[in-house]
Amino acid sequence: MHVRTKEEWMDLALSLAEATIGQTSPNPSVGAVVVKDGVLLGVGTHLQAGGPHAEVHAIAQAGDRAEGADIYVTLEPCAHYGKTPPCAELIVEKGIKRVFIACLDPNPKVAGKGIAIIEAAGIPVETGIQEERALKINQHFFHYMKTRRPFVTLKAAMTLDGKTATVTGDSKWITSTEARMDAHKERHRHDAILVGRKTVEYDNPSLTTRLPQGGKNPVRIILDTHLSLEGSYAVFNDEASTWVVCGAHANKAEFEQNYPNVKVLQMITDEIVLPDLMQILAEHEIQSLYVEGGGTIHKAFLQAKIFDECHWYIAPKLLGGQDARSVVGGNSPLLMKEAEELEFTSYEQIGPDLKVIAKRKEES
Amino acid sequence: MHVRTKEEWMDLALSLAEATIGQTSPNPSVGAVVVKDGVLLGVGTHLQAGGPHAEVHAIAQAGDRAEGADIYVTLEPCAHYGKTPPCAELIVEKGIKRVFIACLDPNPKVAGKGIAIIEAAGIPVETGIQEERALKINQHFFHYMKTRRPFVTLKAAMTLDGKTATVTGDSKWITSTEARMDAHKERHRHDAILVGRKTVEYDNPSLTTRLPQGGKNPVRIILDTHLSLEGSYAVFNDEASTWVVCGAHANKAEFEQNYPNVKVLQMITDEIVLPDLMQILAEHEIQSLYVEGGGTIHKAFLQAKIFDECHWYIAPKLLGGQDARSVVGGNSPLLMKEAEELEFTSYEQIGPDLKVIAKRKEES
Repeated sequence: MHVRTKEEWMDLALSLAEATIGQTSPNPSVGAVVVKDGVLLGVGTHLQAGGPHAEVHAIAQAGDRAEGADIYVTLEPCAHYGKTPPCAELIVEKGIKRVFIACLDPNPKVAGKGIAIIEAAGIPVETGIQEERALKINQHFFHYMKTRRPFVTLKAAMTLDGKTATVTGDSKWITSTEARMDAHKERHRHDAILVGRKTVEYDNPSLTTRLPQGGKNPVRIILDTHLSLEGSYAVFNDEASTWVVCGAHANKAEFEQNYPNVKVLQMITDEIVLPDLMQILAEHEIQSLYVEGGGTIHKAFLQAKIFDECHWYIAPKLLGGQDARSVVGGNSPLLMKEAEELEFTSYEQIGPDLKVIAKRKEES
Repeated sequence: MHVRTKEEWMDLALSLAEATIGQTSPNPSVGAVVVKDGVLLGVGTHLQAGGPHAEVHAIAQAGDRAEGADIYVTLEPCAHYGKTPPCAELIVEKGIKRVFIACLDPNPKVAGKGIAIIEAAGIPVETGIQEERALKINQHFFHYMKTRRPFVTLKAAMTLDGKTATVTGDSKWITSTEARMDAHKERHRHDAILVGRKTVEYDNPSLTTRLPQGGKNPVRIILDTHLSLEGSYAVFNDEASTWVVCGAHANKAEFEQNYPNVKVLQMITDEIVLPDLMQILAEHEIQSLYVEGGGTIHKAFLQAKIFDECHWYIAPKLLGGQDARSVVGGNSPLLMKEAEELEFTSYEQIGPDLKVIAKRKEES
């Protein structure tokens, strides 16, 4: 009989965590398994904010057999009294023998505290097992905890020559159904989706997650400096929450009267200043933002250097035309060396299209 | 002892053929091996136009032992008296026992004739072994033989937002040294390289193959409708042949006096009509053309639907700017469905950059 290694047990815990990506925000996705002598005794995953943590589920399933067993957890057990008592104390109390952890708590203020409680009770702890996979699962959460600003993904669908629409604005369709479905999966994974007023006016998108298998809708955030949107656009339906962002001078009261279900986020400046907006979104616990610009919106985020990844869906077609709409608009810098440096992290074919992910290069 | 399979022997012959890509034009790259009872008796590859064919080299190396041996050839042995006698007859004459062929002669007028000679002598022939790899090796040659027009590769180096230069024309550098070296390898593989007059004036490129390990220079073809280039540009040095293409009205005699080493190809029309130019290049036995446009040049080839592959080097950077130079220039079509449909055939990371190859979709 093949007895699983610790890496293999952690893989199982990580699979449990991965299965909940998108559904636990503002909490992270976490998985846990309880094992003794190569036999699985309990499994758990954090299903939703406010519900029990992964360790609680897994230990409960193991029952009395948890005593003397090992636990594998994808994230350091918590040390604080929140909606539930600290998992680190539960582990000590239940007589767990050894603790294996994939990655530490990302919050520098609490990192290591859960481990300290466990080690103080004489229980050995090993960390860093399958760490890379664990970090990726909670990429958005970790970024938010460390920086207190949402993880920002710029998303675009473009032709191989970098165009998102013809000179007349026609853009249907650039990419395949398969690529568009993948983008719906990304909507499910993000807390909020952001577009500009023009995208609403031109395309009237519903910005919901429409997958055959269901999915969670992100909060829809519309930038509309002057609150000039009017009419029954799809983003104003009640399928998902919609927040409209405006400048200080806009008539918030009137807009709220017209659209009672829409939340208005009013800046204290006349223009929408992106760093300030990120601050506001962070206060509303938006940990991840999926920016479906518009060349103008993409240019604004690029210029403000507020983005962490680009998700580009590239269709195998050439449109041609200096005047066709570029994926990033606005004015060109004078020199090529002013371009923002990125790093490719993945590329794969999705249907006929390519999905390319690039992250911003760390400033050195 | 592991005795090689016929696929493995053919792989060796294909490796011999691959090693000469770029150096045999206007002939194809071909490899051959002679084998008896699992023992290699002779190897050969066609080294240069005018020299012996692969089969001749391999059979000569085997000497008298060729009698009763098998031969593996990557391309159907020739049946015509050219600079050398037909290889099909040599195979019969030397008493070869069995013939294995990767792919047929691409010229529909002669395909099967070599095989017919061999089979008429009672020697069994098997074809199609590792055919896909064999077709790729002589992709340019096969295209030329079938269509009588050069295989046209559009090449560009662009940012992730589809830009090849800033609004001021600055483009140094978009891609990495590694990507630029890869493009030099492509120059070696192509018979000719094509740019517009503006590229010469702005960038003064030498358009030679500059690899640490050497390489063959393609013919440099400059489109200059009015023969208005003047000065000591690098393309006029004597490191490689340069052909300038002009319209009917241009002053060819004067230009030839100024640049005695440059060949002038004068169109019979005032403008340079690309399909006509392809005809002329084909008559000069240019089987493959590497187009290093310029957005204007790329747009012209796109509009004329004269290209077979795009080689795009994509740098992980965002420039931004509707007014920055797009990889394909000119005027946008009105509708997205007018975009030219391609198909991705490969994508790989080269240094920090992506190299994406797309081929034109077959018209259905």
